[in-house]
Amino acid sequence: MGKFSEYGKRITESKLTFFLNIISKKENVISFANGLPDPSTFPHKEINEIISEILTKNPNLALQYTVTCGPNYVKDAIIKLVKERGLDNITEENICITSGSQEALFVLFHLFLNPNDTIIVEKPTYIAALETLNPIGVKYLGLDIKNNEYEIDKLEEELRKEKVNNVKLMYLIPSAQNPTGLTMGLNTKKKIIELANEYDIYIIEDDAYGFLSFNDEYNFPLKHYDDTDKVIYVGSFSKILSSGLRVGFVIASEEIIRKVEGLKQNINAHTPTLNQLVAAEAIYRNIIFKNLPKIRQIYKTKRDVMLKAIENNFPENTICSKPTGGMFIFCWLENLVDTGEILMKSLEENVAFMPGKYFYFDESGFNTMRLSYSLPTYEKIFEGIEKLGKILSSLER
Amino acid sequence: MGKFSEYGKRITESKLTFFLNIISKKENVISFANGLPDPSTFPHKEINEIISEILTKNPNLALQYTVTCGPNYVKDAIIKLVKERGLDNITEENICITSGSQEALFVLFHLFLNPNDTIIVEKPTYIAALETLNPIGVKYLGLDIKNNEYEIDKLEEELRKEKVNNVKLMYLIPSAQNPTGLTMGLNTKKKIIELANEYDIYIIEDDAYGFLSFNDEYNFPLKHYDDTDKVIYVGSFSKILSSGLRVGFVIASEEIIRKVEGLKQNINAHTPTLNQLVAAEAIYRNIIFKNLPKIRQIYKTKRDVMLKAIENNFPENTICSKPTGGMFIFCWLENLVDTGEILMKSLEENVAFMPGKYFYFDESGFNTMRLSYSLPTYEKIFEGIEKLGKILSSLER
Repeated sequence: MGKFSEYGKRITESKLTFFLNIISKKENVISFANGLPDPSTFPHKEINEIISEILTKNPNLALQYTVTCGPNYVKDAIIKLVKERGLDNITEENICITSGSQEALFVLFHLFLNPNDTIIVEKPTYIAALETLNPIGVKYLGLDIKNNEYEIDKLEEELRKEKVNNVKLMYLIPSAQNPTGLTMGLNTKKKIIELANEYDIYIIEDDAYGFLSFNDEYNFPLKHYDDTDKVIYVGSFSKILSSGLRVGFVIASEEIIRKVEGLKQNINAHTPTLNQLVAAEAIYRNIIFKNLPKIRQIYKTKRDVMLKAIENNFPENTICSKPTGGMFIFCWLENLVDTGEILMKSLEENVAFMPGKYFYFDESGFNTMRLSYSLPTYEKIFEGIEKLGKILSSLER
Repeated sequence: MGKFSEYGKRITESKLTFFLNIISKKENVISFANGLPDPSTFPHKEINEIISEILTKNPNLALQYTVTCGPNYVKDAIIKLVKERGLDNITEENICITSGSQEALFVLFHLFLNPNDTIIVEKPTYIAALETLNPIGVKYLGLDIKNNEYEIDKLEEELRKEKVNNVKLMYLIPSAQNPTGLTMGLNTKKKIIELANEYDIYIIEDDAYGFLSFNDEYNFPLKHYDDTDKVIYVGSFSKILSSGLRVGFVIASEEIIRKVEGLKQNINAHTPTLNQLVAAEAIYRNIIFKNLPKIRQIYKTKRDVMLKAIENNFPENTICSKPTGGMFIFCWLENLVDTGEILMKSLEENVAFMPGKYFYFDESGFNTMRLSYSLPTYEKIFEGIEKLGKILSSLER
């Protein structure tokens, strides 16, 4: 194993891959594990029409290399898209198109973080962000989420205590968070911007689920309240158009975008031209905006089915998040059983979920679980939660 | 600028981007600068048919997330493809699909190389490989290409002198090289495999142009002669199907592929599902194999036009490569004029090329130039080379 670099040695199999492999070996598993979109949310007929038209009218553009951060035609569509999230005054120079928002995170983490630099993340946070951060060798400071509340005062205290000159970044998912489904309140958002300015910390705002809010009241992202260009906004088409097309984007200051462009060029030259054009057309032709109420309704109903099933079947002392949007419910089990062990039992009953500890940078949440309600049918959600409830109840002391 | 990581600080604007920007600001430039495929080589009607069929029959697969290294259906197509390059006994576990071969290079370089590790590269070599390697902080050892010959004996000598325990990798483009268009002879190939085994050095073989050989005689890649799994093979669909779709792949031992999978997951989860399926279908439906003779003929004719134009117009003492395939001719000017300065003059005449020094890790080839013949028409090739010849002749002393 001596052949790999120090960085290479720290690259390990993703837990997402690991669990997907276990699950895919079993038949008829009801999976709450991976966050796959409901395919009925993909406007496949419209996408087919768009592609057919592009490849008839403009094949030489669509199948050819393009510029690293994407054509202006696509950037202009993204300006139109994020206006709906309350982001104004965005120019083409502020945008780089990436291969999904995951690539935006990879690029930004590597552009900003040295080994031993500290990054603030939610506790719990998105597992794939942690898996991308760990090989860099960073340190973490947590913004705890407990009892559906963000413990922002505790973070402020720790920042005051901490030697803060190497706290360089925050990575946050303020809207319909993965894995809890929670959205930060306005006061928390304003406090975070305040702290970022006070301690000169950049914020990477992951808004992958921003358009999937179930509340009528509109929740602006952090970037909306950012007057000092401290917030780097990361968006995605995976949950509003198609996950398989792999189109996402970064919005930041010109200086940062130029760096993003340099690294993106080295990684894969550019995001596929055709895929970018499909995303742009889906905005210009109003397909995404027209489709969004339907998508929100699908996930809201599934959330309600799962919450109801949890209420009916899980032990009474279980605390679960009440998602305001997105695809996930996160549960804290009070009897302190390791959910990794529960998963082994539940797989015997053909039910899968993600053990929650992988969403904690210190793997401290061993008694937690993430339940994704996005893919299974209502019936399967109810059936799976019922089975899971029986297992949990049998472990009660 | 203190906010960026040490790695981030070393990320600079790509020279490819820099020159593309200069050129795109001028109208009617005859560009020999960037290596864009001739769009008439893209089978756009067939691609349109494939996509239409996939999105009608199997939209939920094509628009959904897939596994990190790609579905087995796609891997099996690649096994079929590389058999035509003389690669046998490849299994699904030996393959990871990437977003173009550039991404394969990025992943492999970062998995293998620590700062100050030494990598052997051709002199000249692919500019984007150097731009990806430089921020890692590696050292280089050169395999000189002079007078259309590989100076392999000189490399062997240097390896004997060098403290070789930190020479970890070779990065080579043995077939229809970028930027010279040359292909290594069998003896050179065998010598390289021998050296790799003797000094325990892994070889990354970039075979992006492997299918674009103009010779009837079949030239196998290094990987064909590799009995000890020292060669990591990198392939691409950019020159045989479509550059804009961004599909490439790595073939290596299972151990290495598992590492590639781990890093690829962090970078962007997977290459777009639809794009992978298009590449696979283009193999299964025989579109690529049927199209290849036509592609080779287009580039062979353009090469011949450019070589003839060079012969007629460039100063007599100019040495240019005689490409055996691919898209590029590389020239060494004997009067030692800086080709960067010549570019400024030629842009005034609306002709562009790439100064050759960026293809040398030490930027030593200041009197060299890369001329791409892939995109311009025959007429434009002749017109551009004529203009360039006049500039070069005017500089003769």
